[in-house]
Amino acid sequence: MVYDVIVLGGGPGGYMAAELAGGAKLKTLCIEETHFGGCCLNEGCIPTKTLLNSAKLYEHAKESAVYGVTAENVKIDHEAVVKRKDKVVKTLVSGVKAGLKANGVEMVDGKGKVVSRTAEGYVVEANGVQYTGKNLIVATGSVCTILPIPGLQDGLASGFVMTNKELLEMTRLPKDLIVLGGGVIGLEMATYLQMIGVKVTVIEMLDHIAGPTDTDLTKILQKTLEGYGMTFLLNAKVTEVTKTGVKYEKDGKACELNAEKILLSIGRRANCAGIGLEELGLQMNRGAIVTDEHMRTNLPGLYAVGDVNGKIMLAHTAYREAEVAVNMILGKKDTMRYNAIPSVIYTVPEIASVGMTEAQAKAEGIDVKVVKMPMSYSGRYIAENEGGNGIFKMIFNKKYNTLIGAQFLCNYSSEFIVAAAMCVEFELTVDDIKEIVFPHPTVCEVMREAVLHY
Amino acid sequence: MVYDVIVLGGGPGGYMAAELAGGAKLKTLCIEETHFGGCCLNEGCIPTKTLLNSAKLYEHAKESAVYGVTAENVKIDHEAVVKRKDKVVKTLVSGVKAGLKANGVEMVDGKGKVVSRTAEGYVVEANGVQYTGKNLIVATGSVCTILPIPGLQDGLASGFVMTNKELLEMTRLPKDLIVLGGGVIGLEMATYLQMIGVKVTVIEMLDHIAGPTDTDLTKILQKTLEGYGMTFLLNAKVTEVTKTGVKYEKDGKACELNAEKILLSIGRRANCAGIGLEELGLQMNRGAIVTDEHMRTNLPGLYAVGDVNGKIMLAHTAYREAEVAVNMILGKKDTMRYNAIPSVIYTVPEIASVGMTEAQAKAEGIDVKVVKMPMSYSGRYIAENEGGNGIFKMIFNKKYNTLIGAQFLCNYSSEFIVAAAMCVEFELTVDDIKEIVFPHPTVCEVMREAVLHY
Repeated sequence: MVYDVIVLGGGPGGYMAAELAGGAKLKTLCIEETHFGGCCLNEGCIPTKTLLNSAKLYEHAKESAVYGVTAENVKIDHEAVVKRKDKVVKTLVSGVKAGLKANGVEMVDGKGKVVSRTAEGYVVEANGVQYTGKNLIVATGSVCTILPIPGLQDGLASGFVMTNKELLEMTRLPKDLIVLGGGVIGLEMATYLQMIGVKVTVIEMLDHIAGPTDTDLTKILQKTLEGYGMTFLLNAKVTEVTKTGVKYEKDGKACELNAEKILLSIGRRANCAGIGLEELGLQMNRGAIVTDEHMRTNLPGLYAVGDVNGKIMLAHTAYREAEVAVNMILGKKDTMRYNAIPSVIYTVPEIASVGMTEAQAKAEGIDVKVVKMPMSYSGRYIAENEGGNGIFKMIFNKKYNTLIGAQFLCNYSSEFIVAAAMCVEFELTVDDIKEIVFPHPTVCEVMREAVLHY
Repeated sequence: MVYDVIVLGGGPGGYMAAELAGGAKLKTLCIEETHFGGCCLNEGCIPTKTLLNSAKLYEHAKESAVYGVTAENVKIDHEAVVKRKDKVVKTLVSGVKAGLKANGVEMVDGKGKVVSRTAEGYVVEANGVQYTGKNLIVATGSVCTILPIPGLQDGLASGFVMTNKELLEMTRLPKDLIVLGGGVIGLEMATYLQMIGVKVTVIEMLDHIAGPTDTDLTKILQKTLEGYGMTFLLNAKVTEVTKTGVKYEKDGKACELNAEKILLSIGRRANCAGIGLEELGLQMNRGAIVTDEHMRTNLPGLYAVGDVNGKIMLAHTAYREAEVAVNMILGKKDTMRYNAIPSVIYTVPEIASVGMTEAQAKAEGIDVKVVKMPMSYSGRYIAENEGGNGIFKMIFNKKYNTLIGAQFLCNYSSEFIVAAAMCVEFELTVDDIKEIVFPHPTVCEVMREAVLHY
C-alpha cells in the first residue's frame, strides 16, 4: 500500500503531523510502537500535571489558615490520585485516536522499521506488513538517558531505580526518594512527592537546578522547595548505585545516601536507533536526526519532528514542527523558529520562561536592558500569595527596545507566558507592549509594570 | 501654586496618570477625596479577589475527594477573610502612595473642586487651598447606581441594603442575601457568599446574567452557580424594598422575597457632579464626560480618564486612558482603542472575554466565522477539572480571517485572555496565530486548537 505520508510515532509530533496531513486529504498512516499520545500523554506532561494538581489541592486543604480556611485530618490518597491520572490519560488517548480517525488517518499499533527506499518512496515494515510512503515523517521521540554508572542497570532491572514511567505507575509511596538529576522532570516529580509526604533528596551534578533556567529564579524556587522539606545536593556526582542507595562525590569527598527508591531523571536522548535510518544514510548528530528550519533531513521526503531531532524536547515544539513538516509536503511556505518557544516547570510555584535569559543574551554579546522585579507588583499576586517571594525578569535588546526573553516565578505563569512569547515572536518594542491592555487584577499585568519601569 | 498637571482622583486612572506625569518630570498634584487606590483597590477588584481566593481554597479543602484529597471539619472564618482582605488593601494602598511619591507627585487628601479657569489654567480648591493646573485630568471614577425604587433609600440608610462597599466591610455573615442585579459585581459577590454558605438569590431584570457577555457561556455559568445552591430570578423587576426583603414582578405576577440582607449592584454611573465641571461648560453625555480618542474633552487642557468618561468601566481601561492623556500633555502621539480590552468575571469558574461576541459582530453586520468548542480540548483542563463543562468561542472576521473576539469559560482565563487580546489588537490572522507556540499542557492552548479547527 502506498501512502502520501507515513508517520513513525504517535506522540505529540507524530499525531499532530498525521492529523494535519490527513486533514489536508493526504493518504496518511501513523505507526506507534507503545501507545498513541506518546510519552507526553502517557508518562510525561499530562500525568505529572494531574498529580501536581492533587498535591496543590492537598496543600490548599492543609495550609490555608492564613486565608481563613481550616480543615482537620487532611489526607491524600496517592493510589486514588494515580487511578484518576490513569482515567485522565485514557480519556485523552481516546481523544487522540478519535482525532486521527476523524482526519482519515490509518493507525497501526506496532514497531515501524524502515526497510528500504524505492522509487515510490520509503518502505516501512510493521507487524510483518510493508507500507510505502512517498513522504516519511519520523517522530519517534526520546528515551530516558542512562549513564554507565555502576549498579544503575541492576537497579533499573530490580525496580529499585525507576524512570518517570515506572514512578508514575507506582501506587505505594516510598518513605524516601533520591532523585538523580534536578532538571524539569526530576523537579516536578520531586515536588509532587515531597508535597504529599515523601522525603525527597535531589542530587544534581551542576551547581544549580533546572538546567538553563535563569538562576535568579531557580535559587528562589530551590529555597521554596527546601521549605517543603526537600534536600538538594548540588555539585554532586553519583559514582555508584548500591542496593540501598547511591554513592556520590561532593566537594572532593566520597559520600553515601540511602533511600527506599531512586528516580532517574538525568535527561532524555533522541530515540531513533535500530529502525533502519542509519542504513538510509540519514544524517545524525549525537544520536539525533539533523533537520533544517523546514524540518527536512538530508534525504528528500524525509522529515523529523519532535524530540527525535534533539532541538527542543517539548511537546509544543513538536506540534509546531509537525505543522511545518506537513506544510512542506503540501508545498506551502513555512519556517520553524525556536526563539519564542515557551517552557514551563510545573513546580509549586511554577517557572515559565521564553526566549533568552539574561545570561544567554550576554553570552551572545547582546546589549541588554534587564527589568527584574518582585511579583508583588501584581495586586492579585499579593491577594493570593501570602508571603510570596516570586520574581520575574524581562530581557530587552537595548538597541531595538524589543523583548527577547522573559522568566516568571509564580503560579499562573504557565498560562500567561504565551503573551510574552507573542511579544518575542512578533519582535514587539517597549512602546508596542505599552499599548496592550492587560486585564486587572491579574498576575500577568506585571508585564505592563515592567515596560512602564523600562 | 501652579502645576503642570492636576489630577482629580487617586484611583487607577488618577494614580496612573499622576505617576506617569510625575515620572515625565511634570509638576504634578493628585487630589483624592476618599482613599488613594480608588474603588478598585479599596472596595472593588482587589478586595473581591482576596475573598474569592479564600472561597476557592475552602472549596478545594471540602470538595477534592475526586482528586484523592479528603479533609474533615472544613471551615471558613469570614471575619478572618475580611481581616486579611484589609491587610492586602493596606499593603497595596501603601504601594500606590509610594509609587506617587517616587515619581515626585504631590498628594492632597480632600475633595477637589474646580472653582475657575484662568489664563494660567484650571483653579482647583481642596481643603480651602487653591491650586492651579495648566492641565487638568479628571479621574473621579464612578458611584453605585441607585434607582428610584420605593424603600431603597431607607434600606440603604438602615444598612439593610448594602452596596459593594458596605458588603466588603461586613464581618458577620447573613443567613441569606438578595442580590439586586446579575452583572459582574453582583455575580462575584454572590459567588463568594454562596460558596461559603450564604443562601443567595440574584434578581435580574434581563433574561440573562452578566450583561453583554456571550449567553452561550453565561447560561453554563448560571447552571454551575445554581449547582452551588444559588437561585436566579431572571426577567424580574424589583418594585419595592420592604423592611424584610423585596417585592418584584415576574411573568406578570407580583412576588415577594425576604432575606436578611440585600446587595445593590445594578450598575455604576460616572461620578462628576458638583465639582465645578458643568460651570466650565464641559460637554457631558448622560452624566459622563465626553472624550475623544485622545482622552481630550471639549475644553483645552482638560482630560477625562477612567469610569468618569463612561466608556468602559474597568481599571485597566483607566490605566491605558491615563497613559494616553499624559502622552497628549507631553506632545506625544497616542490613541486610545477600545476594541481589544479584556474583561473578566471572577466567578468560579471565571469568564474572560475580549472584543466582540458573536451577537455583537452579527449585529454590526460582520460576516463572521465562529469556532465554539468545549474546554476539554485542553489536556490540562481535563486533568484539573473533573466533569468540567467549560466552553470557549473565538469569533473571526470571515473576510480577513482575523480574530475579532474571544470568550472563555474556565479558570486561568483571566490570566491568558491577554493573549487573545493581543491577537485582536494586532489584527492577527488565523495563519499568524498558527505560528504562535503555546506551551503544553496548558488551558490557553485551546486557542491553538481553535485555529487548527478553523
